[in-house]
Amino acid sequence: MTNHRLIQAIQGKAVDRTPVWLMRQAGRYLPEYRKIRSSVKDFLTLCKTPELASIVTLQPVTRYPLDAAIIFSDILTIPDAYGLGLSFIEGEGPRFLNPIRSEAALQKLPQIDPEETLGFVMETIRLAAKELRGKIPIIGFAGSPWTIATYMVEGESPRHFSIIKRMMYQSPHLLHALLSHLSETIIAYLFAQIKAGAEVIMLFDTWGGVLSHPDFLQFSLNYMKNILQSLAEKQGDKAVPIILFTKNGGPYLSDILNSGADCVGLDWTTNLQVARKLSQGKVALQGNLDPATLYAPKEEIVKAVGTVLEQYGNGSGHVFNLGHGMHPDIDPDQVNILLEALNTLSPEYHSERSDRL
Amino acid sequence: MTNHRLIQAIQGKAVDRTPVWLMRQAGRYLPEYRKIRSSVKDFLTLCKTPELASIVTLQPVTRYPLDAAIIFSDILTIPDAYGLGLSFIEGEGPRFLNPIRSEAALQKLPQIDPEETLGFVMETIRLAAKELRGKIPIIGFAGSPWTIATYMVEGESPRHFSIIKRMMYQSPHLLHALLSHLSETIIAYLFAQIKAGAEVIMLFDTWGGVLSHPDFLQFSLNYMKNILQSLAEKQGDKAVPIILFTKNGGPYLSDILNSGADCVGLDWTTNLQVARKLSQGKVALQGNLDPATLYAPKEEIVKAVGTVLEQYGNGSGHVFNLGHGMHPDIDPDQVNILLEALNTLSPEYHSERSDRL
Repeated sequence: MTNHRLIQAIQGKAVDRTPVWLMRQAGRYLPEYRKIRSSVKDFLTLCKTPELASIVTLQPVTRYPLDAAIIFSDILTIPDAYGLGLSFIEGEGPRFLNPIRSEAALQKLPQIDPEETLGFVMETIRLAAKELRGKIPIIGFAGSPWTIATYMVEGESPRHFSIIKRMMYQSPHLLHALLSHLSETIIAYLFAQIKAGAEVIMLFDTWGGVLSHPDFLQFSLNYMKNILQSLAEKQGDKAVPIILFTKNGGPYLSDILNSGADCVGLDWTTNLQVARKLSQGKVALQGNLDPATLYAPKEEIVKAVGTVLEQYGNGSGHVFNLGHGMHPDIDPDQVNILLEALNTLSPEYHSERSDRL
Repeated sequence: MTNHRLIQAIQGKAVDRTPVWLMRQAGRYLPEYRKIRSSVKDFLTLCKTPELASIVTLQPVTRYPLDAAIIFSDILTIPDAYGLGLSFIEGEGPRFLNPIRSEAALQKLPQIDPEETLGFVMETIRLAAKELRGKIPIIGFAGSPWTIATYMVEGESPRHFSIIKRMMYQSPHLLHALLSHLSETIIAYLFAQIKAGAEVIMLFDTWGGVLSHPDFLQFSLNYMKNILQSLAEKQGDKAVPIILFTKNGGPYLSDILNSGADCVGLDWTTNLQVARKLSQGKVALQGNLDPATLYAPKEEIVKAVGTVLEQYGNGSGHVFNLGHGMHPDIDPDQVNILLEALNTLSPEYHSERSDRL
């Protein structure tokens, strides 16, 4: 599997073309997804039914020539496993019955064994891997401790971050205790995903970018670094590559690039050329097309794909992706335009053996 | 009035201490505001009643030693004046009955004369100015064309920006026509505010930071530059200073600094030291404390104020502010801590005649 294009690119080894997968490539924009989704009562049930979640995982890679399948799941499976009463309200997003806002609530948070409580995720990976038979790697993932904590503390999709920032400034020890608890779970969870067959891991730090620089280091990046280090130690020689993505993390890119991640995801507000210079060839980069570009006419999409490739430049070390998840109302045919453009335009950036390392 | 600390600082002239005002300094966190607010049926009525809006404008400057009063109003007064059926739903934010999503809807958008349709804002300025008798300047403001357009097109507080970005990519001419229309109104509106007595103007580009670099230049910054230029031409020699604030605009700071604004507002994700270096002493800077810092204990607030001052460094050209609006659940006493810290710590940064220019 290590000879697959995606993993080679992350390792900076020569590839024939730029590998690609798309954040939220499995989901609502695909009619075949909506069909499966309508057969179960809610989104969480779908995540928890490996037979269906594995089918949904494979739908985009059956339809499109993508270089990875990302497991169909959600970053909130962990707080759901803690028993916080998670539900997804149609059109409004997640809601927790029991948000964590006190020492007492934190004390009641159980220690969970992801192999047991989140076993359905590992089973989804195993089922998908069986179908894929090594053709492309499976990406496992988790939310960052800070990002998961924002939902657990705010009780819903955070908007102003008032509640968690109040906790951060008034009871930092409480927030640190929550982040430590989450980190332990995430490490065990990701390690279980790797054992089940995930060959790449991605950490989603959706909300790290709302923090000031010192707060980002203290409350988000440090915990992610611990996770990266623990996973490296647990795996020894044959560690899978880890992608770290902080949305709106551009201002703190130097720190993120030095976190120990193998690849850093970028949104469309960060210039790939600048990021590559900063990375000094030590870290691969993933991104960074604005997913809304997929609303555009064909020639605009082709141009935008060209711009992303041009910004990264020649050689390996780049994984093409969107800068955030696919919008649910994208026409699936538009994705073909993107992939065809990439297939046509990217080989010239790999024409010589211009290895990054 | 031009000899006031705030204006002197924007002009880079020596001041005794760093001037300060706070975004959303008038509002829900003040009990005296909540009292007035409860006497009218809704938020928009308060904005449209100059006798009350001027009282609310002056409440924070009566309570605190601030260096400016910002007029109590809203960036959505313009689309409200267009007749789009604006209402504010408690706890949910603004909602438009008639969002603009088609050529036909755009055609129906009236040309308004702000002196008439938005006369209540000018009257609020005049009433507040009468009370202030030149003690401190009044800041007038408007949203940027792009930012106001996001609400007009999305129909509510934008979250994923799917609808306006779809328009941007599929019907750019339509969006440009809307932005041009808005720009004309904003120019007339701000010029009317200046004639009524506003001595500083601020342009709020709350949502410019969700755009990629080329899209930001094309759909947000260019329109703001036109506004800056038109206002400069209309005013001639005695032009009032203009502050431009793009939330999450850090990645595009060089362009923003070169826009023609006299002062650029920064949120807490941009380092003031880096920004000052980029500004090359040509543009003043405003910001950039995370408003959530006001949840913190006293010593943390004092430390955070010190960090902001230290990052900007010695000399004039800095207006202290939050990096975004005051949260509505802040204890008003916390603001005293901030202002006292600033009063104690900032004079040393102005001890010599270290003019910026």
